[in-house]
Amino acid sequence: MGGDVGAKVAIAGAAKALVRHPDISYLLYGRKEEIEPLLAGYPKLKENAQVIDCEVAVSMDEKPSQALRRGRNVSSMWRAIEAVRDQDSDVAVSAGNTGALMAMAMFCLKTMPEIDRPAIAGIWPTINGESIVLDIGATIGADAKQLLDFALMGGAMARALFEVKKPSVGLLNVGVEEVKGVEEVKKAGQMLREADIDNMEYAGFVEGSDLGRGTVDVFVVEGFTGNIALKTAEGTALQIAGYLRSAMSRTWMSKLGYLFARNAFRMLRDKLDPRKVNGGVFLGLNGIVIKSHGGTDAEGYASAIEVAYDMVHNSLQAKIQHDLNEYHARNHSPRGPEAAEAV
Amino acid sequence: MGGDVGAKVAIAGAAKALVRHPDISYLLYGRKEEIEPLLAGYPKLKENAQVIDCEVAVSMDEKPSQALRRGRNVSSMWRAIEAVRDQDSDVAVSAGNTGALMAMAMFCLKTMPEIDRPAIAGIWPTINGESIVLDIGATIGADAKQLLDFALMGGAMARALFEVKKPSVGLLNVGVEEVKGVEEVKKAGQMLREADIDNMEYAGFVEGSDLGRGTVDVFVVEGFTGNIALKTAEGTALQIAGYLRSAMSRTWMSKLGYLFARNAFRMLRDKLDPRKVNGGVFLGLNGIVIKSHGGTDAEGYASAIEVAYDMVHNSLQAKIQHDLNEYHARNHSPRGPEAAEAV
Repeated sequence: MGGDVGAKVAIAGAAKALVRHPDISYLLYGRKEEIEPLLAGYPKLKENAQVIDCEVAVSMDEKPSQALRRGRNVSSMWRAIEAVRDQDSDVAVSAGNTGALMAMAMFCLKTMPEIDRPAIAGIWPTINGESIVLDIGATIGADAKQLLDFALMGGAMARALFEVKKPSVGLLNVGVEEVKGVEEVKKAGQMLREADIDNMEYAGFVEGSDLGRGTVDVFVVEGFTGNIALKTAEGTALQIAGYLRSAMSRTWMSKLGYLFARNAFRMLRDKLDPRKVNGGVFLGLNGIVIKSHGGTDAEGYASAIEVAYDMVHNSLQAKIQHDLNEYHARNHSPRGPEAAEAV
Repeated sequence: MGGDVGAKVAIAGAAKALVRHPDISYLLYGRKEEIEPLLAGYPKLKENAQVIDCEVAVSMDEKPSQALRRGRNVSSMWRAIEAVRDQDSDVAVSAGNTGALMAMAMFCLKTMPEIDRPAIAGIWPTINGESIVLDIGATIGADAKQLLDFALMGGAMARALFEVKKPSVGLLNVGVEEVKGVEEVKKAGQMLREADIDNMEYAGFVEGSDLGRGTVDVFVVEGFTGNIALKTAEGTALQIAGYLRSAMSRTWMSKLGYLFARNAFRMLRDKLDPRKVNGGVFLGLNGIVIKSHGGTDAEGYASAIEVAYDMVHNSLQAKIQHDLNEYHARNHSPRGPEAAEAV
């Protein structure tokens, strides 16, 4: 029911993803009288979907606490998450209210025993392909231990998504040395170096400019900065696209040039298409939840479903659990020796 | 002496800026035997410059504390700042080590009485023109009172730079409501609303995507996030330029298109030219210091000098002092009533 458009986009997206992955079966949570007429247009989807009627739909502008009060047990959002908890489904996808989705996912699924705080991991298009960036806004101001958790979970996700054996992981930091306030980032760096995790190549500190270059597979950062970096990049892409558009339409010469290079521009548009990398992955909970962009269309929604599909097929949860176990087996205290000292 | 290339770029940049602003006169701090031969190539600059021989040059990789120990009183960096303190010059410009420059500027000039911590303000190219973003890396993790100071100083800088009477000021925040950790941002927003400053239009919260759009004249953010946002935008611009280059050179059709649209691409390159917006302004000290990008060329260095020129000509320091006085006159306690409550 979520997103700026609602069920229409979700249904069309589910149909698209089904074409590419015919082994998907759907549980569709929402208002039956709204969903069923839409399903009529997609016979194949209808065959592979079960509609579960829910009386409440969380709205996009509801506060998380309010959504939780009003929608617990009864809303489509809650029930989709609950299905993951009860193992009726492998993964939940929603284009709804992010804050509410995170609040409900935490409340319903709970964080994994070793994890203090969940993260949202985004897939970032880079000049090298794609990287994972986390946290892009689940929680604010992570400490060293939480940054370490993000690194472990991001590394596991990279192994699930990119099928690399030993993903490289960097900690986002500012270039200036000796600045107060980056102690937690430095401490996390030290912990990662000392932990020497088999499944991960710790690459040290990276800067904001490394994001576009994709110098590492996984960028770790606390959520406030991660969220602003993500939106800054999106804004910059739009800004440059705007410059390009106005430059190309200024003279008849440039318009002619545009015509000749039409395919090149199509390629570029394709590269910058935000629908291609849609899907924030909630990490650190006892179950997988994927957040689609609220403003996306059917193609974008299908991408989010495909991220969900990949995460399930490549055993994301098992990979995270494995890495956490390995880390904790090597680093006796449940929080790792360095963090224990710091406490 | 600073920057990746050293005196050569600074001298060539000074000569360029002098052509555009013939009323500049320079004090050039550095190794005389290196500077004087360079000056020979610029007779007009030589006429308007005095070389002050300094035995020590701070290197680009020195730690701030080390630079301060080794370079205090004797380095070209220190002495250029000292000239501002002693009113021998109106403003200091350096392409040297940022951390060292900030440490020396703080030590030598001291922060203004009302200001806890300085900020570095950057000029951000937007679809609307230019905006000011601060802090882009002077200090990490500003509290509400410091964010308010940044807003006041950024507003004063906007009046000096853009010659608007009542610049709009926004606080960078994440979209999600009720997230822990953004209390300081919220508190700063409340303080700004209540302060009702004559010279400023407080525009509320803005997001990372607003940066490229230039929705406000001044974006306020703490330094870690500001620095990473800045570098993320730079990286994204390079990434897209790379996509565009490779798309345009793929087929003979696109190459032909490129030829026709050459002027449009030149315009675009011009828009994205980082040299055009070079110059981080140190705010909150008893004197103005401008940091040029270390990797810039003569054109970029000239831009930084021109930012310095504008700041002096448009009385930046007096404008900041005026706004601080006005704010404190209205808000009795030296920290403002809300901050006092919070302490």
